[in-house]
Amino acid sequence: MKLPRDSAHADVSPTLFFSPPIRSDDASRELVSTTLEPEGVGPEATTPSVFFVGAGPGDPDLLTVRALKLLGGADVVLYDALVSDDVLGLIKRGAKRIAVGKRAGAPCIAQSDINRMLVRLARPGRRLIRLKGGDPLIFARLGEEIAALEAAGVPFEIIPGVTAASAAAAAAGISLTTRGQARRVQFATAHARAGEELALDWRSLADDKATTVFYMAREAAALIAGRLMAHGLGARTPVLLMSDVSRPTQMRLRACLCELQPAVDRFPPGVPLIIIVGDATAAASIAAHPHSEARAAIRG
Amino acid sequence: MKLPRDSAHADVSPTLFFSPPIRSDDASRELVSTTLEPEGVGPEATTPSVFFVGAGPGDPDLLTVRALKLLGGADVVLYDALVSDDVLGLIKRGAKRIAVGKRAGAPCIAQSDINRMLVRLARPGRRLIRLKGGDPLIFARLGEEIAALEAAGVPFEIIPGVTAASAAAAAAGISLTTRGQARRVQFATAHARAGEELALDWRSLADDKATTVFYMAREAAALIAGRLMAHGLGARTPVLLMSDVSRPTQMRLRACLCELQPAVDRFPPGVPLIIIVGDATAAASIAAHPHSEARAAIRG
Repeated sequence: MKLPRDSAHADVSPTLFFSPPIRSDDASRELVSTTLEPEGVGPEATTPSVFFVGAGPGDPDLLTVRALKLLGGADVVLYDALVSDDVLGLIKRGAKRIAVGKRAGAPCIAQSDINRMLVRLARPGRRLIRLKGGDPLIFARLGEEIAALEAAGVPFEIIPGVTAASAAAAAAGISLTTRGQARRVQFATAHARAGEELALDWRSLADDKATTVFYMAREAAALIAGRLMAHGLGARTPVLLMSDVSRPTQMRLRACLCELQPAVDRFPPGVPLIIIVGDATAAASIAAHPHSEARAAIRG
Repeated sequence: MKLPRDSAHADVSPTLFFSPPIRSDDASRELVSTTLEPEGVGPEATTPSVFFVGAGPGDPDLLTVRALKLLGGADVVLYDALVSDDVLGLIKRGAKRIAVGKRAGAPCIAQSDINRMLVRLARPGRRLIRLKGGDPLIFARLGEEIAALEAAGVPFEIIPGVTAASAAAAAAGISLTTRGQARRVQFATAHARAGEELALDWRSLADDKATTVFYMAREAAALIAGRLMAHGLGARTPVLLMSDVSRPTQMRLRACLCELQPAVDRFPPGVPLIIIVGDATAAASIAAHPHSEARAAIRG
């Protein structure tokens, strides 16, 4: 279990090596590590009440084994709109399911409401699962939900998942990195708060030696293309677009950066898009991939 | 199955929307997508001969379900040094196992030899698995092995995995992104070719609005800290260091950027280190995490 956070790390003492950033409360000083020992022997374990679980891109076979086990033993599951029906089908029968996704059809649920629900529903001995599409560590607003639990003293555990970028590259038969060419891979969310401009470090994103992935990129596609080219990325830079990665409805297109918006327009309205920019995508296959058929062959 | 790649995308015709980058061979033009349809109906599937499988960070529960199934049905497995013994234990009994890791104790195996082995060992009907630590899409030199298979006409499939950065953040109870604060997460490898200087875009990496993860960062730690500070990142920027993520031997430390090298020196020699830089790490717990105990409670 984690202690409440604060952000007073600017006050850290220069004489304290290896210390965590200094916190205002004395208790937190106990966290200073004086010896570095494997964590397997740690005696302070607390049974979590909330499990943040990555649902992966959609194919239940891309769940982690741990996620699968947890879903099979769930008491209550709060899930996002991006979680696939196939994954939802693995939740224990009789478990209470609560859709909290912005696109779930129900009236929009505010993040603050989700935070409160988690705290209210958490109970020792109850397996409360917060199920998030993809990887909960990446663009899943995990931090806000963690902060609410910490403030309420509710212990939690996080189970990482396969993020959409990796699943997209895998399905297209390419790597996100290339030795000597793309030594950096970066993920950005193209989703801005309502009424705000998309404030991204375009200079860093427009790097022809990196692979750059934009999540939730549909609305901002024209802006992305324009800004990247304005910051020096070539108009012919190859781009891979994918929707419904790893699902039977998966679609993909290749385009050049200067054709990004018309490429986006060819996807059905509403499907979430992932856009991967960079030379690493040049080799992506847009022919049908053996993924699903191969799976059928290897099963059983 | 993918067609052989080339890099002649600079010649792409501006009149061809949604086309893949133009290739020198005519056959590749057939890849141009004229209609965008769900891929589940694709008729051109080929049964793969080689499966690139992500082994995840080490805990077998962080394997994907698909990886677990494939290991249980393997005929031949070529595996890296970073794959944990617990994961290797899931390989089908009787399968041929070949260690090709640089740290496998055996004489160093060159990448070109691994490429050749894959082509030589691949056979229709044989389940040849190339098992890579973490996520094969990220810093796993997947592209070079794919290129060799494509050149030989060997069909393959890629199964993504949980990458060390996500597993590290999950174990430390933090998110890699923070709404309004870390809108970008970037992964870089700090491993340079022998005799070469580490050529990274330090200006992009030194962004206090991003979370920056360095893989294989042990040797270059002092260089990383120096360059990031020289490019404007504050000396007090919080850093999280972790080794053996998700394994019983997992260790972690928090430090500030200016203390990175002495922090690295506290880890045992030889263990691979991941270094996460940025304000998102400020809240990381370095107390024992309930991970393993909680697992015991939820099992069975």
